[in-house]
Amino acid sequence: MCGIFGIYNHPEAANLTYLGLYALQHRGQESAGIASADGKTMYSHVDMGQVADIFTQERLSGLPGSVAIGHVRYSTTGISQIKNAQPLVINYARGQLAIAHNGNLINAPSWRKKLEKSGSIFQTSSDTGVILHLIAKANKWSLPEALRFALNKLEGAYSLVLMTPTQMIAVRDPWGVRPLCIGKLDNGWVVASETCALDLINATYVRDVRPGEMVVFEKNTIKSIRLFEEKANAALCIFEYIYFARPDSLVYGKSVHAIRRELGRILARESYPLIKQADLVISVPDSANSAAIGYGQAANIPYEPGLIRNHYIGRTFIEPSQTIRDFGAKIKYNPVRDILKGKRVVVVDDSIVRGTTSRKLVKMIKAAGAKEVHLCISSPPITDPCFYGIDTPNKEELIASNSSIEHIRKYLGVDSMHYLSIAGLIEATKSPQKKFCTACFTGKYKIGKCE
Amino acid sequence: MCGIFGIYNHPEAANLTYLGLYALQHRGQESAGIASADGKTMYSHVDMGQVADIFTQERLSGLPGSVAIGHVRYSTTGISQIKNAQPLVINYARGQLAIAHNGNLINAPSWRKKLEKSGSIFQTSSDTGVILHLIAKANKWSLPEALRFALNKLEGAYSLVLMTPTQMIAVRDPWGVRPLCIGKLDNGWVVASETCALDLINATYVRDVRPGEMVVFEKNTIKSIRLFEEKANAALCIFEYIYFARPDSLVYGKSVHAIRRELGRILARESYPLIKQADLVISVPDSANSAAIGYGQAANIPYEPGLIRNHYIGRTFIEPSQTIRDFGAKIKYNPVRDILKGKRVVVVDDSIVRGTTSRKLVKMIKAAGAKEVHLCISSPPITDPCFYGIDTPNKEELIASNSSIEHIRKYLGVDSMHYLSIAGLIEATKSPQKKFCTACFTGKYKIGKCE
Amino acid sequence: MCGIFGIYNHPEAANLTYLGLYALQHRGQESAGIASADGKTMYSHVDMGQVADIFTQERLSGLPGSVAIGHVRYSTTGISQIKNAQPLVINYARGQLAIAHNGNLINAPSWRKKLEKSGSIFQTSSDTGVILHLIAKANKWSLPEALRFALNKLEGAYSLVLMTPTQMIAVRDPWGVRPLCIGKLDNGWVVASETCALDLINATYVRDVRPGEMVVFEKNTIKSIRLFEEKANAALCIFEYIYFARPDSLVYGKSVHAIRRELGRILARESYPLIKQADLVISVPDSANSAAIGYGQAANIPYEPGLIRNHYIGRTFIEPSQTIRDFGAKIKYNPVRDILKGKRVVVVDDSIVRGTTSRKLVKMIKAAGAKEVHLCISSPPITDPCFYGIDTPNKEELIASNSSIEHIRKYLGVDSMHYLSIAGLIEATKSPQKKFCTACFTGKYKIGKCE
Amino acid sequence: MCGIFGIYNHPEAANLTYLGLYALQHRGQESAGIASADGKTMYSHVDMGQVADIFTQERLSGLPGSVAIGHVRYSTTGISQIKNAQPLVINYARGQLAIAHNGNLINAPSWRKKLEKSGSIFQTSSDTGVILHLIAKANKWSLPEALRFALNKLEGAYSLVLMTPTQMIAVRDPWGVRPLCIGKLDNGWVVASETCALDLINATYVRDVRPGEMVVFEKNTIKSIRLFEEKANAALCIFEYIYFARPDSLVYGKSVHAIRRELGRILARESYPLIKQADLVISVPDSANSAAIGYGQAANIPYEPGLIRNHYIGRTFIEPSQTIRDFGAKIKYNPVRDILKGKRVVVVDDSIVRGTTSRKLVKMIKAAGAKEVHLCISSPPITDPCFYGIDTPNKEELIASNSSIEHIRKYLGVDSMHYLSIAGLIEATKSPQKKFCTACFTGKYKIGKCE
Repeated sequence: MCGIFGIYNHPEAANLTYLGLYALQHRGQESAGIASADGKTMYSHVDMGQVADIFTQERLSGLPGSVAIGHVRYSTTGISQIKNAQPLVINYARGQLAIAHNGNLINAPSWRKKLEKSGSIFQTSSDTGVILHLIAKANKWSLPEALRFALNKLEGAYSLVLMTPTQMIAVRDPWGVRPLCIGKLDNGWVVASETCALDLINATYVRDVRPGEMVVFEKNTIKSIRLFEEKANAALCIFEYIYFARPDSLVYGKSVHAIRRELGRILARESYPLIKQADLVISVPDSANSAAIGYGQAANIPYEPGLIRNHYIGRTFIEPSQTIRDFGAKIKYNPVRDILKGKRVVVVDDSIVRGTTSRKLVKMIKAAGAKEVHLCISSPPITDPCFYGIDTPNKEELIASNSSIEHIRKYLGVDSMHYLSIAGLIEATKSPQKKFCTACFTGKYKIGKCE
Repeated sequence: MCGIFGIYNHPEAANLTYLGLYALQHRGQESAGIASADGKTMYSHVDMGQVADIFTQERLSGLPGSVAIGHVRYSTTGISQIKNAQPLVINYARGQLAIAHNGNLINAPSWRKKLEKSGSIFQTSSDTGVILHLIAKANKWSLPEALRFALNKLEGAYSLVLMTPTQMIAVRDPWGVRPLCIGKLDNGWVVASETCALDLINATYVRDVRPGEMVVFEKNTIKSIRLFEEKANAALCIFEYIYFARPDSLVYGKSVHAIRRELGRILARESYPLIKQADLVISVPDSANSAAIGYGQAANIPYEPGLIRNHYIGRTFIEPSQTIRDFGAKIKYNPVRDILKGKRVVVVDDSIVRGTTSRKLVKMIKAAGAKEVHLCISSPPITDPCFYGIDTPNKEELIASNSSIEHIRKYLGVDSMHYLSIAGLIEATKSPQKKFCTACFTGKYKIGKCE
Repeated sequence: MCGIFGIYNHPEAANLTYLGLYALQHRGQESAGIASADGKTMYSHVDMGQVADIFTQERLSGLPGSVAIGHVRYSTTGISQIKNAQPLVINYARGQLAIAHNGNLINAPSWRKKLEKSGSIFQTSSDTGVILHLIAKANKWSLPEALRFALNKLEGAYSLVLMTPTQMIAVRDPWGVRPLCIGKLDNGWVVASETCALDLINATYVRDVRPGEMVVFEKNTIKSIRLFEEKANAALCIFEYIYFARPDSLVYGKSVHAIRRELGRILARESYPLIKQADLVISVPDSANSAAIGYGQAANIPYEPGLIRNHYIGRTFIEPSQTIRDFGAKIKYNPVRDILKGKRVVVVDDSIVRGTTSRKLVKMIKAAGAKEVHLCISSPPITDPCFYGIDTPNKEELIASNSSIEHIRKYLGVDSMHYLSIAGLIEATKSPQKKFCTACFTGKYKIGKCE
Repeated sequence: MCGIFGIYNHPEAANLTYLGLYALQHRGQESAGIASADGKTMYSHVDMGQVADIFTQERLSGLPGSVAIGHVRYSTTGISQIKNAQPLVINYARGQLAIAHNGNLINAPSWRKKLEKSGSIFQTSSDTGVILHLIAKANKWSLPEALRFALNKLEGAYSLVLMTPTQMIAVRDPWGVRPLCIGKLDNGWVVASETCALDLINATYVRDVRPGEMVVFEKNTIKSIRLFEEKANAALCIFEYIYFARPDSLVYGKSVHAIRRELGRILARESYPLIKQADLVISVPDSANSAAIGYGQAANIPYEPGLIRNHYIGRTFIEPSQTIRDFGAKIKYNPVRDILKGKRVVVVDDSIVRGTTSRKLVKMIKAAGAKEVHLCISSPPITDPCFYGIDTPNKEELIASNSSIEHIRKYLGVDSMHYLSIAGLIEATKSPQKKFCTACFTGKYKIGKCE
């Protein structure tokens, strides 16, 4: 789970990267960084924490130049260290190079071992370092060629943006797992994980970087290079639509909100006849809002804000020693008693991972007086972990991997429990199933599993 | 604009005050403070900033004892200083005393002058100090009597919680301008500006402190003392319902969300026939969500999340030097193009003060492709400043004070513009008009103006 | 133990106060503060910590105006709180007033009680607040007259600098306990606890504020007002010469270094004949350096740097859990083995309070190979606490109050032990005994004891 | 200019490393770091700033294990970045490896280029990375063998301490340029740049690591391996004796203070006959104290503390905009007027680099009333830069490289000016000249110059 951003040929490159990362903050809140270049030298600042806390005016003014790339990170490996914060900036035979990576390489460990045997040194535990080392090995060639060499050896998910003192390169893996879009701003070019980053800086969305495509920004031009044959099948991460992306973004060229609303509508079509009658639908805010609105429209029951989300949560929130019941959920959500009291409530959430938070939420909703709680999930049961960059727990910890829906229903304490079907999920995207990776619901890993 | 909290007879007094303030964070984000007492001594920590940033485990453990009060503050006077952060803690003839105040005293300046003439020293610029000085002058009497003496001299709005090393006192002014409720937790008692603070710590709502009532918590008992005759008329701030309180709170004993939804419904009844036909209704999140939902239900048009709110805003956000159009609104909200494009949109907002942000928002919505924009405000035009604790600008800066609705419509660039009527506003509260202060809409100040 | 500084009529008032406080840092490292005034308004910033850490360029630029006063504090009361940090700034009937105080008022508690009875509120635990409250009570008179009124009621030690938006006032108590000098810089005037503060900013030393004198800086003039008759006897703190002041300062018009060297010479005259023969003299750096140099000159034995002082000590130094022997002394001092090994060493220190540090030092010196250790103290035995502003422990904790010199010698583990005589101490100052307070050596308190 | 420390087989390894670095703080105040290991994993924390500021109890408890190494750094390259802070910790084919380096490799740039050509990546600008990359290239061999391989290729100055999860290795270059000593503590072993670090933790000095020796601490034993033949000639940095080391340390097995005092005595022998008569000798504290004391003893004139050093200097000291004359020197030193006034003064300083600070000091001393100033330097004229780890400016900026002594005398404004002779310098060390590097005085670089 990461967000990447790059801007080429703009006098305010670092400032706009800061704003772009700010818009992508939901993709990673553990660390953030910006590297910039002025044609000769590179500058960078990375730190643990959120964008608006890390970057002051003073720090941004220490990042001059008209090219910049940035990264926000939520560790997928569990190792939270400043060393792993990106962009990584290195010196190698061809000079300085910076890289920001969203995704996960499944064969990085064996390449790392090979590289170490040949004398390479790794200073980070992230897989991104392997890309850099392979580039460095191919240093006789130009950077695009060296990158081709490196990526030919690596498998998995990667949307990348790289920068030298004079050029910017964007790449997306041949399966297109993670999104990456191109925008235009004044005389410059922008790349970003989601279009919401373009919106904030008034850049115009042009198109996505295509799966297997490398886009080189150099000498004030943009050049497309095909690294890999375009596949008939792709493996676009469908979870971006369900939960991860911002609803105001276009992802894979389509409105996230529109698809989520459609998820809710189809979910209603599939589940409401079984529920028969409810008084209202509420969402687990904010990620399930669009689906819940769609659900209400399709089921023709009112959508109400039955849970209020607290937006001030500090990073090191202190729990009182005398435990408050269901504190973890409570600090994040408060039920609106007046909405829920005596009501038959449809609760729409986007997904269930371990089920622990859902269980607390259901308790809170019942304690607030709901007569019936029908939990409707706008995705199929998550049964398998993601190896391509989303931080999911082991199969053993995934509740739907080990329990029947009826078991889950009892565990969560709800009156009825409904998941969206895979067919319904695909229908909502209005794209063919072969375009997507749905491994977390099916266990079918198109690109293979992690070593 | 402030939030206050107090807890009496609970082993985790400071920890729970921290959580209570956290739930009240929306009432003031400039400073926060907690004072606690262990029967003999008082401890306190106040600082600029937000609750979760100020209080660490270490700082909370420096606040022992079973009584504690807390305060969050948004300066109504414009002077942002640690000195004015509350609770104020003083030493006077009867020992230590702490106070937290929500409201504004309109005759504080003249009393301050009198007190200074008699040799009193003020270390803060806030009006709260005047209460303390008058209490100190009456130090021969018990604290409740001294407080009666002080409050008899003062006019304006005040919900107060005071603390000595052994007792807690809650008071509400005779007009009841600002809310203050009582809850029960284990063997202890809690007071708070809103019930959402009770919810978070699992306390049970008991009742409101009544206008003109003083409630003394002492020797493990609760005692009600009437300071002022109960008035037939009150001056409950109606703006708490419109904008200020959290929707999941009860305020003046009623659900804020329910009233806001009703404001939306009546607003639809009053305005939608004039608009005739729209494709959807959106809200300016999050404060107008309830009203927009109600509007959609009454007008029978779909409610959609047309604006996405960014929740990561840092306090010192850096604007790029090359100005981005409408940056101020953009950093807070992003329009969802897919929802708005080609649509006739009803936009519900809770109020308009200067009109500058609304204007930027409208521009953004139009730029996202909306065909028509109909702006519906779930309150009457704000024509007059508040002297009772809400931070409104001078009359000259209030757009509705100086312009006709048609002028405002043109300035904002909308196709039509609709305010809720005062009658509609009162109707939504399901209480008689005489209970409320509506001075910001009418200029009729029940308690008088500031000196 | 505090340092005060003031500057009147200089365009860089706050910047120079910052430097002045920096030079006075040895007088207090717990808190520091500056208040400035621009003819109309006062500005202030105080915080816990050291001058160079507290004041940034940004904070200094928030302190405009041509008058400023400052304060560094080492708590004499043991209560370390930001509230007690000075300058105190208040609002009273005549406007704004700031004060910085070095010294201690012995009858403050009873006046505080009286003032509280009359309705006064205290926000600090320091005695300085009493001066302000008495000034406020006399607010019909001009500030100099009100100050005369206040100081007539108070007893004890005080060197004060006060500031209004347009004037600066310096006062010294009738006994002159704490130093306060006047300097000239360009068209402005400076006051400071010690002349080293004048040196750093290139101001010229003019004279001391005289005991009982008030000096008013106003309308670009300086005016001397006699508050109290000049006494034949004074009570200049002799400990400033022994330990407290910087050796490069003039205090009471005389060179601190010169007097300390003389203390060492007389100490040698009094003690060396008893020691008979030693190889060298070392000092406990840095405060005893001057005396040790004088001792070496008089005894005609070489002065060597036998102990090296570590100057990087952080405020929260972490001791390893497995205790290092004599860690407390070790972290501060390291013996130079090559100097001490096999030698008969005279160790000169300025004073002994509890004796615990001296004991550790002696152990270290012996462990480094010294054959004999003769401890010579450049002051008489401290037998009684100071009530006039120096932070000494209770009589019970003063080792010389309870033990014979022979006992102390055994406790410290030295071969011989020698204190300076009171006569020798007075002789070194080249002033008559009646000028000084020597209560810490004699128990004779000229001004009385604390209530 | 750096300090290094390591400890093997001690339960409090990180805590003691913290103390060791604290004692070595004078060798580098720009960054500090500690890496520890518990037999399996490595932990590290490095940051910009001073030891006591960087390491809290919490951070130290995050550094478990019984082996630890540490580093303090003053950038010799002028690039002040967290990336260059040491210990460097890497992953390579044989696992984790940490290194701390004091010195400078003169042929690092060409090896870096070669390594980059072969595909190596550098993340730091320091020369230390080259050692690591060469070790990684030789990863088929054991670490000691790989280290031998690497160091055989590198020239220059290096005292190193390395650590794997189970072993510690100390190495000194064949010329022995930088010091490195071995101590014993309980069942563990310690290595440190200077013995003052052993003293603080109560470790016993055993011996120095010999030039060209590698000492391996493993399986609770210590093993000496000879990497290079012992040379008849060495290149011990003589500047450690003159200025860099702490006077309470043994360096190259001898007391720094004793040698400095001897430098002063010989300087007196060489210069005082030319000065003929002076009233006293003062030092530029603290580094010239020992020499000044020796000078006074030999010349038989009193040593006095004529300059007081300010020890509170903050890192970002703010200079007032209206320049104070000679501010840079003033903030560090204050002359004691009473000592200097009307006197003929010998000023002893350890060295002159650019001459700018000396010039300001002389002005201050004269302004304080000195009648004559005779500047005596306890080292020969510095005419050439150091390539082996001491941060000296270019030859052009070295005043003695470009000017005659008479010119320097005039520039500094002193009555006479005297440098120690090289012969005198060597004499003071009581070692043969061939043991030392004296290139900064002679331009004769035994190991060659930097590429």
